[in-house]
Amino acid sequence: SDFSHLDAAGGARMVNVGHKPEQQRTAKAEGWLRCRPETISALRARALPKGDVLTVAQIAAIQAAKRTDELIPLCHSLPLNVVEVEFDIEDTAIHIRSSVSMTGKTGVEMEALTAVSVAALTLYDMCKAVDKTMQIDGIRVTEKIKQ
Amino acid sequence: SDFSHLDAAGGARMVNVGHKPEQQRTAKAEGWLRCRPETISALRARALPKGDVLTVAQIAAIQAAKRTDELIPLCHSLPLNVVEVEFDIEDTAIHIRSSVSMTGKTGVEMEALTAVSVAALTLYDMCKAVDKTMQIDGIRVTEKIKQ
Amino acid sequence: SDFSHLDAAGGARMVNVGHKPEQQRTAKAEGWLRCRPETISALRARALPKGDVLTVAQIAAIQAAKRTDELIPLCHSLPLNVVEVEFDIEDTAIHIRSSVSMTGKTGVEMEALTAVSVAALTLYDMCKAVDKTMQIDGIRVTEKIKQ
Amino acid sequence: SDFSHLDAAGGARMVNVGHKPEQQRTAKAEGWLRCRPETISALRARALPKGDVLTVAQIAAIQAAKRTDELIPLCHSLPLNVVEVEFDIEDTAIHIRSSVSMTGKTGVEMEALTAVSVAALTLYDMCKAVDKTMQIDGIRVTEKIKQ
Amino acid sequence: SDFSHLDAAGGARMVNVGHKPEQQRTAKAEGWLRCRPETISALRARALPKGDVLTVAQIAAIQAAKRTDELIPLCHSLPLNVVEVEFDIEDTAIHIRSSVSMTGKTGVEMEALTAVSVAALTLYDMCKAVDKTMQIDGIRVTEKIKQ
Amino acid sequence: SDFSHLDAAGGARMVNVGHKPEQQRTAKAEGWLRCRPETISALRARALPKGDVLTVAQIAAIQAAKRTDELIPLCHSLPLNVVEVEFDIEDTAIHIRSSVSMTGKTGVEMEALTAVSVAALTLYDMCKAVDKTMQIDGIRVTEKIKQ
Repeated sequence: SDFSHLDAAGGARMVNVGHKPEQQRTAKAEGWLRCRPETISALRARALPKGDVLTVAQIAAIQAAKRTDELIPLCHSLPLNVVEVEFDIEDTAIHIRSSVSMTGKTGVEMEALTAVSVAALTLYDMCKAVDKTMQIDGIRVTEKIKQ
Repeated sequence: SDFSHLDAAGGARMVNVGHKPEQQRTAKAEGWLRCRPETISALRARALPKGDVLTVAQIAAIQAAKRTDELIPLCHSLPLNVVEVEFDIEDTAIHIRSSVSMTGKTGVEMEALTAVSVAALTLYDMCKAVDKTMQIDGIRVTEKIKQ
Repeated sequence: SDFSHLDAAGGARMVNVGHKPEQQRTAKAEGWLRCRPETISALRARALPKGDVLTVAQIAAIQAAKRTDELIPLCHSLPLNVVEVEFDIEDTAIHIRSSVSMTGKTGVEMEALTAVSVAALTLYDMCKAVDKTMQIDGIRVTEKIKQ
Repeated sequence: SDFSHLDAAGGARMVNVGHKPEQQRTAKAEGWLRCRPETISALRARALPKGDVLTVAQIAAIQAAKRTDELIPLCHSLPLNVVEVEFDIEDTAIHIRSSVSMTGKTGVEMEALTAVSVAALTLYDMCKAVDKTMQIDGIRVTEKIKQ
Repeated sequence: SDFSHLDAAGGARMVNVGHKPEQQRTAKAEGWLRCRPETISALRARALPKGDVLTVAQIAAIQAAKRTDELIPLCHSLPLNVVEVEFDIEDTAIHIRSSVSMTGKTGVEMEALTAVSVAALTLYDMCKAVDKTMQIDGIRVTEKIKQ
Repeated sequence: SDFSHLDAAGGARMVNVGHKPEQQRTAKAEGWLRCRPETISALRARALPKGDVLTVAQIAAIQAAKRTDELIPLCHSLPLNVVEVEFDIEDTAIHIRSSVSMTGKTGVEMEALTAVSVAALTLYDMCKAVDKTMQIDGIRVTEKIKQ
């Protein structure tokens, strides 16, 4: 047959975590929403039309981290202990940092990255009426801890 | 800077439950959908246009309790052991009672309150073709148990 | 047979909106989270442990209104034009008001009631560390407009 | 009163799994999408208009298995260790097999059946432009293991 | 390069419905849950442990039909006008029939098939404590209407 | 009172699109997953442990675009006509491009950006077993069309 086993099986495989030990796991991630200095000024002046940009982005990020297994097809459902999202306001960017912790069988870097990504998307949505030049950059894992 | 740490961090904080012990936890809640006596008569006569009001409300409540972490932004994802929803038919109200149990690190009163609230909303939806005067009242926690 | 047609058909019926005209529809609802005066003081002082109570509740309410069809089994999926949620801080309560608008074939009062209910639940969650006496009351539709 | 306790309580009961032990549980299921031989030829030739039929169906099945508790009202939320979905291409059918494993308090046969059902529905969707005669058949549990 | 365009593009394509006219569309589907005669007797006697089997299955089916676009990756989000689910109790099976209507740009047969499939899964879940021999069969589209 | 109107109202405002005309709208976005050259080689050789990386990422992106209103709190629910996601394999990156179209009252750039972001996260998840150095960069809108 010209039909390979890979094709008959389909092309997606979830990792079996059944035999991994439960451990305390933490992952941290970061990223930037780059924008114009006028956008940062409007943010500082609380003058953006959709409201309190940072709190809305933080809520969106926390909620998305809890649903990472719905967004990323081969991720496991994980009961997170905490999701933290913080922002540093720079001159032409908002720096986003997340930290996610869980007691379980697999790492939580995808949850930390999802939190940063959805925070960045929500910041973009909150600011897009005043800035058409924004860009999301530098999303990466900064730390993984297993205890 | 006139930009406080609270603002830069955003305004939402999830509680870290990582160091709490796993315990058997139960919470109970109640509430009322107040309505006209004719609505209660139609309910008893199974004459409401959308069907079996109580079973539909019960299913909606159980499903919502399982998704409390999606509805309430800072709630944790919790694997519930059971959700129970019961109704007492009064003369001008439906009394809703819920009980939720779980083995885990944090209480389940929000799950019990969510079950009552969504049961009340669904009862409202099932009865609204015949009653424009309904009101949801008295939603509160009646008991919390930790073992 | 002792098995009626109703039973064989099951007990839930969705209303067919296929022949209704598309209209501009608005519904408004309200409700209260009753609490201790000390809780209101902590809210005004921004001293509640989970953060910016009102914005988090507002976001939760807007998101829940958009998903009313998932929460309430026989509701239709409706593309909302806007969801507004406002709060009035009273001496021993937070008064919640919502307004929902849509261009479509069926009313949006369930969406307005869902927004108020989930705002109340989220306020409860944000304040429950400091107040065990809270109660959700008076959730009702205050206005329905069809143009 | 002619209003029985069953009615007043509503008609749905979730099983309480609080006192069950945590065990390693596996369930396997199977089913078939029956179709015309020309559809199988188009599949083998990768000539179906929506693309890589098997991988898309596999992803849909894995994602649905993780959300079984949202689809089936009285199912518990379960953190799955792995979901596997495989296909055998027959002359006039695609044979679908799933295997689901979890460490927890209740069996996972509903998750295995949901994976097969949603795989079958997705295969149907991917092939329906070229075949109006398809039928989903023989969905059943083939094995349950508890360790 | 040995890396084809198909691979670089990935293997999934959604159909663009942007230029299709809005039409009134209806699809009907059917299927069977085959079971032992004793299971039918228990259903008729309302003696099944999880409660009102048919209403719970009907609700699950209606809710799943509304979320077909989440379950089947390449389906469009469609605002359904109505979902109807009915059951015929046979000697060794429950016959499930669905009808789904919508005003829009694409057919709703996947929604009708999803309703039948999730009804069958829910019936299975409600009956599985008393019957280990059940099988889901004969899921197919019975009618498509476009006006 | 020291309690401003903004605080009493909460800090989030959804834009009312009720008076905007329905138009054909398209938005395109792009971004990169930067990785090691060995990761690109493994991708080309189909040697990555979780399977067909590009198709899985494409499906995840299409599904996330359809749910943008759930991820980003103040976005409207929009019935998309089509979501397209394509990849270009570069020496040390995967270039992701999305295009989203809809007939409706508001733009779809957030949907296009969400598709790119979730594609990037899924690619990251599929490759992370072999590469700890990856970074997501350059996510931006490349085109907006309104007809």
